Amino acid sequence: MRLVSTENKVKEPRITLVGAGPGDPDLISLKGIKALQTAEVVLYDALVNQALLNHAPQHAIKIFVGKQSGDESFSQDAVNKLMVDYALNFGHVVRLKSGDPFVFARGFEEIDFAESYNIETNIIPGISSATGVPALQKIPMIFGKLSESFWVLTGTNADGLLSPDLVAAARSSATIVVLMGIERVKEIAAIFQKEGKHRLPVAVIENGSSETEHIVIGIVDTIAELIEERQIKSPALLVFGDVVSLHPEFARIRDFYHVLEYPQD
Amino acid sequence: MRLVSTENKVKEPRITLVGAGPGDPDLISLKGIKALQTAEVVLYDALVNQALLNHAPQHAIKIFVGKQSGDESFSQDAVNKLMVDYALNFGHVVRLKSGDPFVFARGFEEIDFAESYNIETNIIPGISSATGVPALQKIPMIFGKLSESFWVLTGTNADGLLSPDLVAAARSSATIVVLMGIERVKEIAAIFQKEGKHRLPVAVIENGSSETEHIVIGIVDTIAELIEERQIKSPALLVFGDVVSLHPEFARIRDFYHVLEYPQD
Repeated sequence: MRLVSTENKVKEPRITLVGAGPGDPDLISLKGIKALQTAEVVLYDALVNQALLNHAPQHAIKIFVGKQSGDESFSQDAVNKLMVDYALNFGHVVRLKSGDPFVFARGFEEIDFAESYNIETNIIPGISSATGVPALQKIPMIFGKLSESFWVLTGTNADGLLSPDLVAAARSSATIVVLMGIERVKEIAAIFQKEGKHRLPVAVIENGSSETEHIVIGIVDTIAELIEERQIKSPALLVFGDVVSLHPEFARIRDFYHVLEYPQD
Repeated sequence: MRLVSTENKVKEPRITLVGAGPGDPDLISLKGIKALQTAEVVLYDALVNQALLNHAPQHAIKIFVGKQSGDESFSQDAVNKLMVDYALNFGHVVRLKSGDPFVFARGFEEIDFAESYNIETNIIPGISSATGVPALQKIPMIFGKLSESFWVLTGTNADGLLSPDLVAAARSSATIVVLMGIERVKEIAAIFQKEGKHRLPVAVIENGSSETEHIVIGIVDTIAELIEERQIKSPALLVFGDVVSLHPEFARIRDFYHVLEYPQD
């Protein structure tokens, strides 16, 4: 298949990848808004807040290219071709992706494909859910003696498997953020349990930065049960680490274990 | 010391921590701009782009609280007190920090101090340099078989030492981003060398997202020398990992080693 311009070019083809941030439409960058304002076409993903489309001109074509559950009609390959096809025929295409386009979002693949057609590409980073969502819950990535670094992983890798990096992560003293991991939380918790980290604090944050944001705090041994009980659904991220103990809701858990360890007469 | 309001309160004291992003003033979020527009006082750090202060009302008090090199007059403690003092006396204080306030930025400490005075606090995350700066150079954190996760560390921890997490990081297969590490790049490279990763690709990005942005690409064995030769200065971050090989400038290095390995007759 060759993608070609079907009409006389009136505008230079170009593609801007824009990170929409974690969900709150006000968490997009000013630069992202400016890109949308000059878009002829916007291709947006499932997790992108549709309020952001209002920044694009009314005449701009807005196309949903997210994967509906079970619907694989928009494969990565299809999105790539659509993006190039629109750029060649309409000019400025904004590819609007949730979070940051270069963190688990296949932004590179899209840029690479576009550049193979000699189309100018630009990237406007976004606030990654990995850092932004815990911050909104006042959970720092780094804090004093509790953590000096953070490690961001996915629950399910490109092959649909649990990432092998999780084993090294569970061994490390970094704050661990797992995106797309709640469906496999039992397996992930088992990795931490194997390292003896049964009581490591864990937070699950569902729909971070949106009006339906919801946090559940537990420890490695209880988190899978809590997620089931509270019926937490995707999108949700997991934070494993002592920094989670700084969240006010952790006090209750600490008290509980304190009582277990020092039973009263 | 007790911080008290010295005049009749006209406005409710509150503090908003805002992440300014990596440097480009257009990389602040819309929400961050809205917070600045209602600020009575803005306390800003050394790496914050001062163009952002134009979003605050003209009457707002703007105070630089960054650490000048060698000048320790604004300790964390002093910033905390100043912030609370201004909130009690003037109302809405925006604490503007570079990058994201909860990634290596002591945002939690400031929030915690303010809350001990029962002052309402809010957080507006920012684009962390750790992800945003490599993205602008089209270096993804994650890519196919090259990397399934990324780990963000600091070169110098709270005790002024090389973070011990770097040893585990060098052993892992994650993309490694080191902030505040270029002064110790020899020691950091030595950690990777000890793991046999002499030819692991490395990028150094100086003044990321600003007009004076500058990237140098090398491998573990050459990076310290390159930084010295090209006179790279802080702020700069290091990216260690095979994803760096996706940068166009890496092709030259690959060719060089290819020649070494397969010498022509």
